[in-house]
Amino acid sequence: MAVFLNDRFVENSEALLHVSDLSIQRGYGVFDFFRTVNGVPLFSNDHLQRFYNSAAYLHLPVKYDVQALSSIIHELIEKSSIHEAGVKIMLTGGYSADSYRPSEPNLIITCNPVVISTANDFERGYSIITHQYQRELPHVKSINYLMAVWLQPLLKEKQADDLLYYNNESLTEFARSNVFIVTPDNKLVTPEKNILHGITRKNVLSLATEMMTVEERDITIDELINASEVFLTATTKRILPVLKINGRSVGNGKVGETTTRLYDKFLQLENSIAHLVSR
Amino acid sequence: MAVFLNDRFVENSEALLHVSDLSIQRGYGVFDFFRTVNGVPLFSNDHLQRFYNSAAYLHLPVKYDVQALSSIIHELIEKSSIHEAGVKIMLTGGYSADSYRPSEPNLIITCNPVVISTANDFERGYSIITHQYQRELPHVKSINYLMAVWLQPLLKEKQADDLLYYNNESLTEFARSNVFIVTPDNKLVTPEKNILHGITRKNVLSLATEMMTVEERDITIDELINASEVFLTATTKRILPVLKINGRSVGNGKVGETTTRLYDKFLQLENSIAHLVSR
Repeated sequence: MAVFLNDRFVENSEALLHVSDLSIQRGYGVFDFFRTVNGVPLFSNDHLQRFYNSAAYLHLPVKYDVQALSSIIHELIEKSSIHEAGVKIMLTGGYSADSYRPSEPNLIITCNPVVISTANDFERGYSIITHQYQRELPHVKSINYLMAVWLQPLLKEKQADDLLYYNNESLTEFARSNVFIVTPDNKLVTPEKNILHGITRKNVLSLATEMMTVEERDITIDELINASEVFLTATTKRILPVLKINGRSVGNGKVGETTTRLYDKFLQLENSIAHLVSR
Repeated sequence: MAVFLNDRFVENSEALLHVSDLSIQRGYGVFDFFRTVNGVPLFSNDHLQRFYNSAAYLHLPVKYDVQALSSIIHELIEKSSIHEAGVKIMLTGGYSADSYRPSEPNLIITCNPVVISTANDFERGYSIITHQYQRELPHVKSINYLMAVWLQPLLKEKQADDLLYYNNESLTEFARSNVFIVTPDNKLVTPEKNILHGITRKNVLSLATEMMTVEERDITIDELINASEVFLTATTKRILPVLKINGRSVGNGKVGETTTRLYDKFLQLENSIAHLVSR
């Protein structure tokens, strides 16, 4: 498995960082992640744009422009020969002399087989719990998942699939996904503030505007509880229905009509991109 | 420079982690840090106890008990032959198969020359700014310094030496130090909640009880502004007077009497330990 490290392709076993790197010393770094369908990168322009935005916000220079970086990524995807891959682009605070001040960032790009949600996962849906928490610098895809990783035993204990964060009585996002609700009067609503703006979220918003009224605004816990449908969006999950929240059923407890229509549309979009590019 | 990595001493150039480590992937890890005086570890029992507490809280098992770990650290200090060293013990989330779930932790212990504050630094004092922020899992010494590292350019812009965090109108701590104030009626006060309980803080509290009334409780911003003296405590700084806050002088703008007495007592304590152990 090839990995791109700073300026060259290396074997996976050589994809190493010295312990003085600021990701290890201070959890300082950003990343982005997209997948390929039949070897075709999905929404990679959006992901790359977000990667550059995250890096700039954290004062971390990227030594390649977007054309050069894209070309490296394409070469990596070809070398890897994985049809359904997850491509991860990481940029750390670099080797720090005093273990506190950033230096020249380390860039790591990996391309690995990816596990994505199946039609069965969609049918089964998710059981979630809510948790009060606000991600730091939420619009940046930083590597800070201290809370999310720390809370994994709680998920297990509660036999839940995922955690939905809220703060000041408003929903924000899941640890690695965005949240949408369908209101009883059939509007699609998703939070706009204090979240990472997901690329799947963006595509779902775009697909939904043809179907119904769409609002980006704060959602209260009460609205969540009383929603007709709830679902999450993420790169590796596309769209997944949420059927239980803190042990209580959402709507009639079954996968909703809007969620299903959006899921079908998203699959069509994905297939059309893979088909268009690869033919 | 020797480094201890998991189960053996390696050269510094071999102190490497694979990029799948959860510190690099998700900023997940803990550490602790103490220094040596004339080769004698300072307050290392307290630091090791805190290290085990941090690790347990983050569900990260340490494969050595405290005796075995102490013995490794002593060997590392001897190998390093540095009279004034900083010893850092790090424990990460380990090599994660899915870049999200912790596995067997990686343990890294380094021993490097350390820069500590001088008598000149004490005379000059610190100019600080305040910033609204609450560290996540504050009583754990995790590697999450996203906010602290991100705010470094702000410090530079404001020509300040350090950032004092507050939340809900109460002070908590500096990014890497604890805060103390001396009130106009001559009490020594330091926050108790939502902070990392520093080892220097603990020693200063103990030294101060012989001198004056000591309180561990919330401190408001107003109390900070009206304090007679303000200082910070940290392993590499011992005690440093804060002489300016957001551009305004503290008290008469000079290093205070209580701060100076505590500093002298702390130096005595440090010297007595180094002398007792090394003779």
